Amino acid sequence: MNDIKLAGLKGRDRTLIPVGGKIIGKDFVLIAGPCSVESEAQTVEIALAVKEAGADMLRGGAFKPRTSAYKFQGLGLKGLKILEKAREKTGLPVVSEVLDPRDVSWMCEYVDILQIGTRNMQNFSLLKEVGRVNKPVLLKRGMQATIAEWLNCAEYILHEGNPDVILCERGIRTFETYTRNTLDLSAVPAVRELSHLPVIVDPAHATGKVSLIPPMSLAALAAGADGLIVEVHNHPENALSDKDQALRPEQFAELARAARGLLAYMESAR
Amino acid sequence: MNDIKLAGLKGRDRTLIPVGGKIIGKDFVLIAGPCSVESEAQTVEIALAVKEAGADMLRGGAFKPRTSAYKFQGLGLKGLKILEKAREKTGLPVVSEVLDPRDVSWMCEYVDILQIGTRNMQNFSLLKEVGRVNKPVLLKRGMQATIAEWLNCAEYILHEGNPDVILCERGIRTFETYTRNTLDLSAVPAVRELSHLPVIVDPAHATGKVSLIPPMSLAALAAGADGLIVEVHNHPENALSDKDQALRPEQFAELARAARGLLAYMESAR
Amino acid sequence: MNDIKLAGLKGRDRTLIPVGGKIIGKDFVLIAGPCSVESEAQTVEIALAVKEAGADMLRGGAFKPRTSAYKFQGLGLKGLKILEKAREKTGLPVVSEVLDPRDVSWMCEYVDILQIGTRNMQNFSLLKEVGRVNKPVLLKRGMQATIAEWLNCAEYILHEGNPDVILCERGIRTFETYTRNTLDLSAVPAVRELSHLPVIVDPAHATGKVSLIPPMSLAALAAGADGLIVEVHNHPENALSDKDQALRPEQFAELARAARGLLAYMESAR
Amino acid sequence: MNDIKLAGLKGRDRTLIPVGGKIIGKDFVLIAGPCSVESEAQTVEIALAVKEAGADMLRGGAFKPRTSAYKFQGLGLKGLKILEKAREKTGLPVVSEVLDPRDVSWMCEYVDILQIGTRNMQNFSLLKEVGRVNKPVLLKRGMQATIAEWLNCAEYILHEGNPDVILCERGIRTFETYTRNTLDLSAVPAVRELSHLPVIVDPAHATGKVSLIPPMSLAALAAGADGLIVEVHNHPENALSDKDQALRPEQFAELARAARGLLAYMESAR
Repeated sequence: MNDIKLAGLKGRDRTLIPVGGKIIGKDFVLIAGPCSVESEAQTVEIALAVKEAGADMLRGGAFKPRTSAYKFQGLGLKGLKILEKAREKTGLPVVSEVLDPRDVSWMCEYVDILQIGTRNMQNFSLLKEVGRVNKPVLLKRGMQATIAEWLNCAEYILHEGNPDVILCERGIRTFETYTRNTLDLSAVPAVRELSHLPVIVDPAHATGKVSLIPPMSLAALAAGADGLIVEVHNHPENALSDKDQALRPEQFAELARAARGLLAYMESAR
Repeated sequence: MNDIKLAGLKGRDRTLIPVGGKIIGKDFVLIAGPCSVESEAQTVEIALAVKEAGADMLRGGAFKPRTSAYKFQGLGLKGLKILEKAREKTGLPVVSEVLDPRDVSWMCEYVDILQIGTRNMQNFSLLKEVGRVNKPVLLKRGMQATIAEWLNCAEYILHEGNPDVILCERGIRTFETYTRNTLDLSAVPAVRELSHLPVIVDPAHATGKVSLIPPMSLAALAAGADGLIVEVHNHPENALSDKDQALRPEQFAELARAARGLLAYMESAR
Repeated sequence: MNDIKLAGLKGRDRTLIPVGGKIIGKDFVLIAGPCSVESEAQTVEIALAVKEAGADMLRGGAFKPRTSAYKFQGLGLKGLKILEKAREKTGLPVVSEVLDPRDVSWMCEYVDILQIGTRNMQNFSLLKEVGRVNKPVLLKRGMQATIAEWLNCAEYILHEGNPDVILCERGIRTFETYTRNTLDLSAVPAVRELSHLPVIVDPAHATGKVSLIPPMSLAALAAGADGLIVEVHNHPENALSDKDQALRPEQFAELARAARGLLAYMESAR
Repeated sequence: MNDIKLAGLKGRDRTLIPVGGKIIGKDFVLIAGPCSVESEAQTVEIALAVKEAGADMLRGGAFKPRTSAYKFQGLGLKGLKILEKAREKTGLPVVSEVLDPRDVSWMCEYVDILQIGTRNMQNFSLLKEVGRVNKPVLLKRGMQATIAEWLNCAEYILHEGNPDVILCERGIRTFETYTRNTLDLSAVPAVRELSHLPVIVDPAHATGKVSLIPPMSLAALAAGADGLIVEVHNHPENALSDKDQALRPEQFAELARAARGLLAYMESAR
């Protein structure tokens, strides 16, 4: 861990990143929205629903990294314009994934947080590019990456000058097949003892099962996570991607209530 | 999962296992004690301390499965007699690991719960033998075992006639090296949706780091675990095994307080 | 690796184990036969076929460790008696798995090599028991075990007094699903630089696919393996276990020819 | 595997890719050279040595993906110009890694084969970009990727119009720590039964140990690999990257001799 000179905890204050009305790293944040932006109607409807249910930010993919060349690859610029509209209507800041270093600077016009996906965690060209802009970066852990490697990737971004990195644990690849990945929740307190950067959890990609998202969300919170990012869809059965792991708006509302309640207890117990 | 005819949830009530004054599967249980029984003084002192701190049961190894043939292998019968004494002095029921099918019947005279360790999860001779006695069995998940394989091992025990199996998630083996294993907390709600058997969590073997035990214990509780099993030592630095993952009695007392508080909140929020 | 005092290479000659007319560790050995002993007719027919095809030893399971409590568990003593008959008819020494420490001494009357299966690699009671008898032991690598842990298990056997341990790489558990396990062939030269014990390869359990067995057998040989153990069945489609990875006798004969040819080349090229 | 319409074997001839005087997919190819291009003197000296020893192509990194932001990142364009010079002096075609989609078109002026590294296997922007140029692509398997995912990444390249993809197995990430990764040699025959694309093996990154490279190279050949890519350095102890896994030129010469001999035997035995 000697090479995490800027990302390491030693001698530094915890990083606080103001986005919308919240301060990531201080306020617990709930980020919710569809896996992919599919249409304006779908995205705005979901955005209104998650806002109503208590989400602090809106997620939605315009560029989708897909295993197969023949699966829906996202709406691209059109999707970003839809996200912009959803932000106008709800006031929710927008988180969206960037796949290509050539897209970084212009995507900053449309999004509030740039997401680096798990498959690109060690895409060093992309890391350097997001390190040169003035937007917070949500850095997902590689599904095969050790905690040390993940922090080294955050270091690449910090080293280029962008101090606002949010780490996101989203499950690692193991032999277990009941869940899509294995959520490594120990990474949350581990990151907190190694680094000053905030760390949030994505229980949807980690488990791949709607039924496991609520308990693992509460567990993430209890382990000390600074927030959650979950997939919500108004018609999960018709979603163009990740249909098995998207909550319905009413399920998200219930989860948000449970999370806020647990949070209030945890804060009172400190 | 077709072969978990007896362990499967379908059409069955949740298994409740009375041990001491508690009902495992209904009451949250805290099991604590040294990794190995080293001496009567050490074991009794720790037993009194964990009792005082709120433990419901005492754990302690008399037979130790060790990677190396040259490491401390446990005190055997002498260790069991010490545990018996600790039970007399504290009233705490005793959990201890059995390694050999030939030891099962006589060990039942000394312990309240027989533990099957992670390396023996698929030791089918041993599973069949503990299936024929009248003592609850704590079945640790193999560090390489899928959830399906684990439940199939519980099935072996139930099939022999012993209905009282307690599952224990203790971390699986992955590529991550910061933690000793990777605690698969998703296994807790997964087991709860697949089986009627109670499931507890061992955060000590999973993480191998004292600093990660408290947050992961609370996370386990939030995920729905029926209990925790942790290692406590009065002088961790001198422990004959697992010294890096044993809590001091005062650390355990703090953890027990935090766990009981969170539990009370969780129950009130239902 | 400090604890492999007896299994380590340092200052020791390579272990040579005479079985039948061959010396394991010096002569390349081909071990073949059914996964499970199912009947006398089946076993004797297969034994005659593999003998004809060039096998040096006969494998066959009388006690079968099965994931499910409801799958065929082997014929037990009856199976061992059948193996004894097959040996009489063919002259082939017999390799069979022992599951329970209570069976070790009497099984020595029936078999020429005791096999410890992957799920029992760290069954220390069983290791100690086979360490006290006068039969070679084939120690399969645990599907989750590091090379260091595997050698430590060999050390347990040597430490009890039995010097005749044959290591067997049979695939480790990874995220890959196309193959049943991942054959870690690097373990062959790794073991050869760490230990004086012979090491053979089981390509059937490692790959779980008939089509991959011949190329991986030749690869094992090229990597320096001291032998191969493969499953052969006269009617694989009706086998009571592991039907997808059993060669037909004529496939085995072709593999044996290819292996002997490659071996002759490798020896001439030294 | 339904989505590998172009990469799948079904109904297609094996892909043959002429590079220099060799046809990859038909002729066995040996690719050798330094991990990183460090200087003209170093690169040319190594290039002459590997040419002399029987290499068919020269490898060398100008852009280096490094875990740490503070490690040598490669000489960039200067490195490519050095490789160009080494090609002039030896006639060896050049293989070098491309990290950024913006570099693809101009790098084609300098290299004969574009390499996609393990961390970028699922960098879909980069895959699409190399799919649009007229240079063969060496696609390394992601250290966390299943065979199915790997073939889907080849499909991305083929789908854009570039038919010349060479697959390269380089080890996957597992729990084993004695080797740097675990070389999954079964992937070689697996790919050959699933796809018409040639597949080569990188035993250096897979094992991370000089001593294991020769046996695993021969094993790769016996398993049916179409070639090998290895790291050679004139002064491994001073290499700026991967010093523990680089062969000295004389070790490579010996390996090349052994490989050519085994190859001749394998062809005669068909």
